Amino acid sequence: MSRRRVTMTDVARLAGVSPTTASFVLAGRRDMRISGDAEERVRRAARELGYRPNLTARGLRTSVTRTIALISDTIATTQFAGEVIHGALDAAGARDHVLFVAETEGDPRTETRLVEGMLDRQVDGFVYATMYSREVRLPAALRDARVVLLNCYTEDTLAPSVLPDEVGAGRDAAGVVLGAGHRDGVHAVGGRHLTDATPDGVWAGWERMRGVEEVLAGAGVRLDGVAECDWQPEDGHREVLRLLGAGTVPRALICLNDRIALGAYQALQESGLRVPDDVSVVSFDDSDLARWLRPGLTSVALPHYRLGRTAVELLLDGETGAAVHRVPMPVMLRASHARPES
Amino acid sequence: MSRRRVTMTDVARLAGVSPTTASFVLAGRRDMRISGDAEERVRRAARELGYRPNLTARGLRTSVTRTIALISDTIATTQFAGEVIHGALDAAGARDHVLFVAETEGDPRTETRLVEGMLDRQVDGFVYATMYSREVRLPAALRDARVVLLNCYTEDTLAPSVLPDEVGAGRDAAGVVLGAGHRDGVHAVGGRHLTDATPDGVWAGWERMRGVEEVLAGAGVRLDGVAECDWQPEDGHREVLRLLGAGTVPRALICLNDRIALGAYQALQESGLRVPDDVSVVSFDDSDLARWLRPGLTSVALPHYRLGRTAVELLLDGETGAAVHRVPMPVMLRASHARPES
Repeated sequence: MSRRRVTMTDVARLAGVSPTTASFVLAGRRDMRISGDAEERVRRAARELGYRPNLTARGLRTSVTRTIALISDTIATTQFAGEVIHGALDAAGARDHVLFVAETEGDPRTETRLVEGMLDRQVDGFVYATMYSREVRLPAALRDARVVLLNCYTEDTLAPSVLPDEVGAGRDAAGVVLGAGHRDGVHAVGGRHLTDATPDGVWAGWERMRGVEEVLAGAGVRLDGVAECDWQPEDGHREVLRLLGAGTVPRALICLNDRIALGAYQALQESGLRVPDDVSVVSFDDSDLARWLRPGLTSVALPHYRLGRTAVELLLDGETGAAVHRVPMPVMLRASHARPES
Repeated sequence: MSRRRVTMTDVARLAGVSPTTASFVLAGRRDMRISGDAEERVRRAARELGYRPNLTARGLRTSVTRTIALISDTIATTQFAGEVIHGALDAAGARDHVLFVAETEGDPRTETRLVEGMLDRQVDGFVYATMYSREVRLPAALRDARVVLLNCYTEDTLAPSVLPDEVGAGRDAAGVVLGAGHRDGVHAVGGRHLTDATPDGVWAGWERMRGVEEVLAGAGVRLDGVAECDWQPEDGHREVLRLLGAGTVPRALICLNDRIALGAYQALQESGLRVPDDVSVVSFDDSDLARWLRPGLTSVALPHYRLGRTAVELLLDGETGAAVHRVPMPVMLRASHARPES
């Protein structure tokens, strides 16, 4: 910065006290007797001069820089990232911390370089995040650091983990379908995301489907079919057209995310079927799309803001141990589900 | 961090040189004669011990912390934020800098607190960003700092500014419509965003419309109408239904963003009109929606990644002065425009 920094010595001089006295007052220390008058003079001098503590120097002495780092595989590719960062920033700001953000793009060497860059800057702790829920291996450089895992889990360390309650979300989605009165013609589109690229599926798919099947089974209802596919609009479109082409008219579609639901809407519309009169649709994520579709799409929300906030709260409020914190996923009821006719 | 930090003294001891010699070698300084052999021993010792420079201490001596701050009004409310951050991270990483991210939520007191928090941490510079293009007043605390403005502009300082070339985008959108052969029935939906809440409109609206009207006028074509409204799907839906209700069937709609275009698609579909056979649609932003709509929507892309990257490049590569850098907006051609029938 070009402006000369106002130093503690400047403050002490204006206040007419020793630098040590000024420093004790401004650090809020109570282990030295200082008169109320001197304290007031120091505070006034600091205000007048616009004195700001040098946190870089303080960091050296106390090993607390009041900075934390959010390191993730990729922030940019999901439209939800903003809300995660927003929640993290709110929790950090409330605790007077600032936030580094870094992306590894899934490259271990970049990850090591970034983690070491943050350790060089003596961050107080890390939130290690993935944009899709999954198991991870923590980089070696993080093994000794304070870490909270966000949207992922690991066997490597005892760090706390924050994950969305996807099983609960699946239960709630099935509950909406049952609550509307559907018992037949219920199909899931997207399933566990068992595709060539992800032959083992994805974590959110397994968890959501577990919740769905558990609640349907409890009511004696069986899924008429599960279309395993990728989770993009074109996949929802293709799979619903395929169902209809095979002569099946579903009564309720449980789409594994909103993008699939968009494709389902498009396929139903092209086929002259109405949502929700002919076919009910429920979904997951509650992205902007859910509000924008006509009729509005009932969707179980990924609580991005709360995930980001909770991770930073656990990090800064001193939570330790390997506990997994499940953040509830609220159901956003809209107009895409109805009682089946006939 | 719980692990004891490897110090320069440890490295010097293992290498059998003085701490000063070790420090000169590792700082890459050339103002002291050091034998090639000693230099090699120091580097090997640093590698073996896993020595990392203490950037907090280095920051105190050199006033360069290799950190920058991205301060914005709100990151979370736009789905594009991720790409802006991604671009900024790439440019920062390529220059061995890390990035603080902070949000003011438009509150001047929060803004002052955050800027001072960053100055306390001795950041090397700031990217000051807004999520919607507009004029801003820089906070007083930033007047003496190195700043690049992103997606905004100001009369306050001589800082460089990075803005999308919205006029060029408007020209290109009109060019697509003319290129398809439309000369009649061309309407704009969204206009300058002249609403009760924004009686003066928004900057992107004025700029896009200026480009549109310039190119149409050059070809002797006039807009048949401009619907001034908010830029959400429901507004596009309502305005297109209103047009159709008044007995007008447009031949080409220039929607001021993709959300409006989604609403227009919905209204046309409900009215039994086909895109592009009956009505061509072109748009701005190139959000995910543009790819997801059926048929795919031709849209002029907001270059979020490049905006973020350019701002950090200008900041770290030493650009000064009040120049405005216009980042081109590429046209993404898809299937929503066609030659008018008859």
